[in-house]
Amino acid sequence: MPTRASEGNTQGRPPIRTVDLIRKKRLGGELSQGEIAFLIQGYCRGEIPDYQASAFLMAVAFRGMTSREMAAMTEEMRGSGSVIDLADLPGRKVDKHSTGGVGDKTSLIIAPVVAAAGITVPMISGRGLAHTGGTLDKLEAIPGFNVRLSPERFKEILARVGACLIGQTEDLVPADRKLYALRDVTGTVDSHPLIATSIMSKKLAEGIDGLVLDVKTGSGAFMKSNEDAETLAQAMVDIGKSCGKRMVALITDMNQPLGEYAGNALEILECLDVLKGGGPEDLVTLCRELSAYCLWFGEAVPDVDQGRKLFHKMIESGRALDKFREIVQSQGGDASVVDDASVLPRARHQSPLSASAQGYLEGMDTEKIGLAIGVLGAGRETVDSKIDHAVGVRFHKRIGEAVATGEPLCTVYYNDDARHREACRRLLESYTFSPAPVERPKLIKKIIS
Amino acid sequence: MPTRASEGNTQGRPPIRTVDLIRKKRLGGELSQGEIAFLIQGYCRGEIPDYQASAFLMAVAFRGMTSREMAAMTEEMRGSGSVIDLADLPGRKVDKHSTGGVGDKTSLIIAPVVAAAGITVPMISGRGLAHTGGTLDKLEAIPGFNVRLSPERFKEILARVGACLIGQTEDLVPADRKLYALRDVTGTVDSHPLIATSIMSKKLAEGIDGLVLDVKTGSGAFMKSNEDAETLAQAMVDIGKSCGKRMVALITDMNQPLGEYAGNALEILECLDVLKGGGPEDLVTLCRELSAYCLWFGEAVPDVDQGRKLFHKMIESGRALDKFREIVQSQGGDASVVDDASVLPRARHQSPLSASAQGYLEGMDTEKIGLAIGVLGAGRETVDSKIDHAVGVRFHKRIGEAVATGEPLCTVYYNDDARHREACRRLLESYTFSPAPVERPKLIKKIIS
Repeated sequence: MPTRASEGNTQGRPPIRTVDLIRKKRLGGELSQGEIAFLIQGYCRGEIPDYQASAFLMAVAFRGMTSREMAAMTEEMRGSGSVIDLADLPGRKVDKHSTGGVGDKTSLIIAPVVAAAGITVPMISGRGLAHTGGTLDKLEAIPGFNVRLSPERFKEILARVGACLIGQTEDLVPADRKLYALRDVTGTVDSHPLIATSIMSKKLAEGIDGLVLDVKTGSGAFMKSNEDAETLAQAMVDIGKSCGKRMVALITDMNQPLGEYAGNALEILECLDVLKGGGPEDLVTLCRELSAYCLWFGEAVPDVDQGRKLFHKMIESGRALDKFREIVQSQGGDASVVDDASVLPRARHQSPLSASAQGYLEGMDTEKIGLAIGVLGAGRETVDSKIDHAVGVRFHKRIGEAVATGEPLCTVYYNDDARHREACRRLLESYTFSPAPVERPKLIKKIIS
Repeated sequence: MPTRASEGNTQGRPPIRTVDLIRKKRLGGELSQGEIAFLIQGYCRGEIPDYQASAFLMAVAFRGMTSREMAAMTEEMRGSGSVIDLADLPGRKVDKHSTGGVGDKTSLIIAPVVAAAGITVPMISGRGLAHTGGTLDKLEAIPGFNVRLSPERFKEILARVGACLIGQTEDLVPADRKLYALRDVTGTVDSHPLIATSIMSKKLAEGIDGLVLDVKTGSGAFMKSNEDAETLAQAMVDIGKSCGKRMVALITDMNQPLGEYAGNALEILECLDVLKGGGPEDLVTLCRELSAYCLWFGEAVPDVDQGRKLFHKMIESGRALDKFREIVQSQGGDASVVDDASVLPRARHQSPLSASAQGYLEGMDTEKIGLAIGVLGAGRETVDSKIDHAVGVRFHKRIGEAVATGEPLCTVYYNDDARHREACRRLLESYTFSPAPVERPKLIKKIIS
């Protein structure tokens, strides 16, 4: 029978053995803070090999983690590298994080709005992944905009401007980089506790006091069901609270793209529209709700409702737009973009895509739409491939709207005919119609705090 | 959200990716034969790294495997190295395999009995593991007995003598060695499908036509519950049958040591006792039942009942004892052991251990007993440590027997006072008594075929 003699012998054994912790998790036990510290620190130091770490991650994927385990794991991961210390900056520091979707550009609106109200917004953002867009890719549509800043420069801009949007730095949460690379090749990417600890360790390394989470659910989200999204949201809220942070998570709809535009330069223009007082209703509403919590957590207002009012005030007064200009300037971007769309890359062609059926727009397979936009060139095919910032799609119809045959569903902005054909094929496939009226999906499904 | 862009891209992808197979198993899917071949062959060739293999093993530990998956995995593992081809030897080749226990010495009796009836018995056995004894360790109590023979020599002795008992060779089932080493450090040793495929791949590499399994259950077995033992037994029987082998598994009791003696040299003497027509009832019964199936599978008899009769005939006629002598001689051992116990190592001291309570013997924690015997020196503390073949225990009382205070429960054979004290402490702790009569455990609990 395959069991080693040494396993039965408890004498002369070191106090903790990795294999025993893997087994404990496999059998459904709760690991102590010390045991989790042993695992994470040992793995980061290279003392625990990848093959034990991957077995542990798989056991977690099956057994889950308790709130205490997740809090301990998050703290250990955060402590694996340097953290950004903003204690010497005055006032509250607040961030907003979204789990990602199609057309999700709220960061570019919320950061200037909240910073304009005097709150520090240290935003460490991501790139497009799979079918989703990424804040950093959108910002880089602005000529000169630099998202690769040192922690020192990040902090200096935060002190001066109040908001700064950069990419993950090498020395922040190295444990997450190592664990994520392992999860990616061992089939454990989509485990709630692993996602929650990964996100939260990075967010807590930003030196924030409060965090507003936008957890997307639906066909264009990573969490396809409300239940999944709520479980993940609750896990992240619990972790943040146990670390003494003010936390809220909004479960929001991603069954159709957010706003009218998807595509990097196109989304910058749409954000400017919102900051100038326009923009589509869903995008404005979501930015207002998320900003309201940020403003409340940042102690600029006494409650969320005052936060909503302050959001509109920041826009109407032009202060949010000024802040956007300031952010772009401070990060090396061409701030004339605010008044002159022609500084942004522009697609050579645009062409409407017409409905071949009629009825009420019933569904949009938003993951498929995101991938179609990727085909146009807005996303990366490999980690190293270049993005075409100009291309994208404008959506004319939302779920529940009536559509007549031949009426344009969307307009495609493109630079390459073959890519255009393939993207249109995919876009058409993603739409479904119903002869009977269809209920419009609710934008904000639940608030978890 | 942590998902790689490349995961969403299905173009230019090789037909099978390891991570997709890990995920398939994680989500409860059934892997095809080709997919299992990809995993096992890839791992053996070093193309699939340990960290992916360990994630796969952990997913199997949670999800289990279907009979088809286990059969495919067993075949791939068996095919990972050379196999012993006994096709040119006349007649049937049959083996018996036990999952291990305390005092389990049936191989040393069954091999000569079955070989004496003209059947070839290619036995590749193991060492003591954890609390259990090992056939190879017992044989090595006989001066000169060599269990490290080449496959050529193994086959030559099988052709001449009919039975040969050796250890695992380097070139047999290397996949199992590699996988087992990984399971050992990643907490997946006790997974039914992994145990079943490990055992069966090695047994099927012996070139046998039939296999009789003795799956132990109870306090001294690796499978503590009948349910566990039956699941494992059924899995192994299914695998063997799907490979065209005659298969049976007896689920047998290991809530107390088998026979009267545990300890290497002591067990050799007890086996000789049985081969000479004596020996304790439980040991004789189990040897008879297991041998009867072997004789039937080997086509020496038309049914199991005739097998039972032939077992007794082989012993009464002295042919089994002669065969034992022949086996010892052919493997370099001192065959005079058959008539002269003094060639075996003998402990310097022996001392009875008396009951401090009275009543009916209710339970013996047989794992604890096995570990106590290990403390005496009969087992290994580390993989490299030497065994004291002389030490051991003779058990005077079996479960259900009445015991008076001061009456000896067992006799301890030892060479070291400190070890003796510690072993006695553990032995005493392992006994429990009841004021009311206690039912004797049934030796053979179930037959699975």
